Amino acid sequence: MVDELRQVPGSVTAPRGFRAGSTAAGIKSDATIKDLAVLLADVPCVAAATFTTSRTPAAPVLVCKENLATAGFRAQAVVVNSGNANCSTGEPGLADARMMAQRVGERFGIAPELVQVSSTGIIGRRLPMDKVAAGIAQVEVAADGGDALSDAILTTDTRAKKIAVEFMVDGTTVRLAGTTKGAGMIYPNMATMLCYITTDAAVEQRWLQSILRAAVNDSFNMICVDGDMSTNDTVLVMASGLAANAPLAGTTPGAAAFEAALRHVTRYLAREIARDGEGMTKLMEVRVLHAATDADARKAARSVTLSPLWQCALAGQDPNWGRILAALGASGADFAHERVAITLGQVPLVQDGLAVEFAREHAVAQMTGDEVIITVDLGAGEAAATAWGCDLTHGYIDENTLYTR
Amino acid sequence: MVDELRQVPGSVTAPRGFRAGSTAAGIKSDATIKDLAVLLADVPCVAAATFTTSRTPAAPVLVCKENLATAGFRAQAVVVNSGNANCSTGEPGLADARMMAQRVGERFGIAPELVQVSSTGIIGRRLPMDKVAAGIAQVEVAADGGDALSDAILTTDTRAKKIAVEFMVDGTTVRLAGTTKGAGMIYPNMATMLCYITTDAAVEQRWLQSILRAAVNDSFNMICVDGDMSTNDTVLVMASGLAANAPLAGTTPGAAAFEAALRHVTRYLAREIARDGEGMTKLMEVRVLHAATDADARKAARSVTLSPLWQCALAGQDPNWGRILAALGASGADFAHERVAITLGQVPLVQDGLAVEFAREHAVAQMTGDEVIITVDLGAGEAAATAWGCDLTHGYIDENTLYTR
Repeated sequence: MVDELRQVPGSVTAPRGFRAGSTAAGIKSDATIKDLAVLLADVPCVAAATFTTSRTPAAPVLVCKENLATAGFRAQAVVVNSGNANCSTGEPGLADARMMAQRVGERFGIAPELVQVSSTGIIGRRLPMDKVAAGIAQVEVAADGGDALSDAILTTDTRAKKIAVEFMVDGTTVRLAGTTKGAGMIYPNMATMLCYITTDAAVEQRWLQSILRAAVNDSFNMICVDGDMSTNDTVLVMASGLAANAPLAGTTPGAAAFEAALRHVTRYLAREIARDGEGMTKLMEVRVLHAATDADARKAARSVTLSPLWQCALAGQDPNWGRILAALGASGADFAHERVAITLGQVPLVQDGLAVEFAREHAVAQMTGDEVIITVDLGAGEAAATAWGCDLTHGYIDENTLYTR
Repeated sequence: MVDELRQVPGSVTAPRGFRAGSTAAGIKSDATIKDLAVLLADVPCVAAATFTTSRTPAAPVLVCKENLATAGFRAQAVVVNSGNANCSTGEPGLADARMMAQRVGERFGIAPELVQVSSTGIIGRRLPMDKVAAGIAQVEVAADGGDALSDAILTTDTRAKKIAVEFMVDGTTVRLAGTTKGAGMIYPNMATMLCYITTDAAVEQRWLQSILRAAVNDSFNMICVDGDMSTNDTVLVMASGLAANAPLAGTTPGAAAFEAALRHVTRYLAREIARDGEGMTKLMEVRVLHAATDADARKAARSVTLSPLWQCALAGQDPNWGRILAALGASGADFAHERVAITLGQVPLVQDGLAVEFAREHAVAQMTGDEVIITVDLGAGEAAATAWGCDLTHGYIDENTLYTR
């Protein structure tokens, strides 16, 4: 399915019917940095979204849910700022988030409930609403503005993350594109993850919501321990329908191709986030095979990516598989120690729970690149899962020791 | 209760009836380091223990359980080595652990099933049994040997951890003492935690097991995420009964004093482990109040101690409470955002889920010492819990990047 995808240039404005732009609103302390962006569709779009499950969600997350419900799960615009998360700001913060939607609606002549709102940055401070309002008043959107949006949402990311693909749906060429930001999030309690996905395909809303949830579960949720951990995490899909295909749902022709494209894009973006973890030098991909249940496979894979001891070993190119084994043992997954196999790249390290004799230099050679693959066979069933993470280095410490100063 | 405790010098040989000693067996690469120790009681002791819940427990853990069952939950000796965990070593590793018990039994004239066996160090390598056997043959035990044992069990710890207390039980003076090792374990998937507790009190076995489990739950398990995470974790209590008091159980006079002493010792040792986390510069104590349930209180407290973002902020003396809030929100504990209060030392940072205006220098002043107390009020019920952790620094990275080399 995925090999029928063709990658095309650009970001979320690559599909028909989307414009975007950004401006330096002065929310971040450096007033030259673009910190406010708008994504605008030519028509109201079918929308689907997943949000943080945190008990302390930020105001914009609450307003997004409110607006989606009011608008019947449709959306026509997104406004997003970086530099301030608008979280733990109480009723005034909610009013600020609603005001952002209101101002975008006025500026572009659409109903405020068709506007989705995101914020990312420091928690616990009110948004400078005069600057936000002035930014909204001055931001310009254009058909080539997707890259500008991809840049404006970054916080400690070192680079923009975006992808656009084109594929056939029942004889019609459609596009699907996405952009995301992440960075600190490779860890539990991570920084905010925002992701916007656009498509010109016509799609049935409930089906879109169901395939989005599944795709997020196998991509972004496999780089965020315990699902959605930040206060602001948002993944939003907007489908303009301007490709004029027959609306896609479960068994319609092209639905499988569309779902494959969505999975490709979410997986690509999730890997890009892991690859850009704060201070990271290596991406790790942990493939767990033959787990007893899906839940076990997911727990086991994530437990390895989240072991700081193994993350440090990875940074040092030290094939200390005892740390992988300890992470598996502590993961809560059900398996028998004497059936475990661990393979580092192409080199088997453990078979039947026992050390395999291996040449240290061969194992180290599997760790010298910027991607390291760890395959774990639990020998307990038929379930599998893949998780992504990165190594733990001095760069992470530097990045996070002084942040609010 | 605790204020009736008197601290006395020494370690696990402070109570009547215990001797200990160590030797350099050559298990560690530096042949001058003491890496094998024996604790010996004059009489068979009532024993209680808790072990790792890892799915990949080490061979000595399995042999300890086996011996406790065979001996009717009695023990007279402990043999412990550092430098090699005897984990993932299969049937040969089990035979090695059993052989250690056998050799100690022969050397000191006791049944092998009365010997408890521990190992800590690298996973996946067979023990050098010739060296282990020679070490057991040469180790000498003495009534002042507790400190030698405390030293010999260390791995990356920077100092020994031990305590001995004396208190009255129904008119009889008794002693209870403990020693432990930890270090990397402040993190999930930590290094091994071993703890040995001795007492000369006479104690009923089933009651001892029940109060040990509860004490470990509120101490060591509040510094180890998800309970017992390493492959070798062991907490063992041996009660010699040589104080000749009437055996203690649930409601006997002195039982409460004994339980308080056990809780004092386990809590002290757990804090000592947190205080000696790899690379750490600050101990954090997180007190969660007014949680809906005990489980919620524990989850919330541990979630804060285990947030690497907050750990980094702590290292940098940056009162970035948004990271505490994010950790609470992601902890899975049930509470309402608008009821949360967070206090750093004496300085309130959050009330009713909202930022309190505070002078940054006052907040920073709460973080300059080597102990930082964070109090979280969830406003959701009557449960409370305390967890301990430490900051995350470059020292941790250095310690763990190259370990097996």
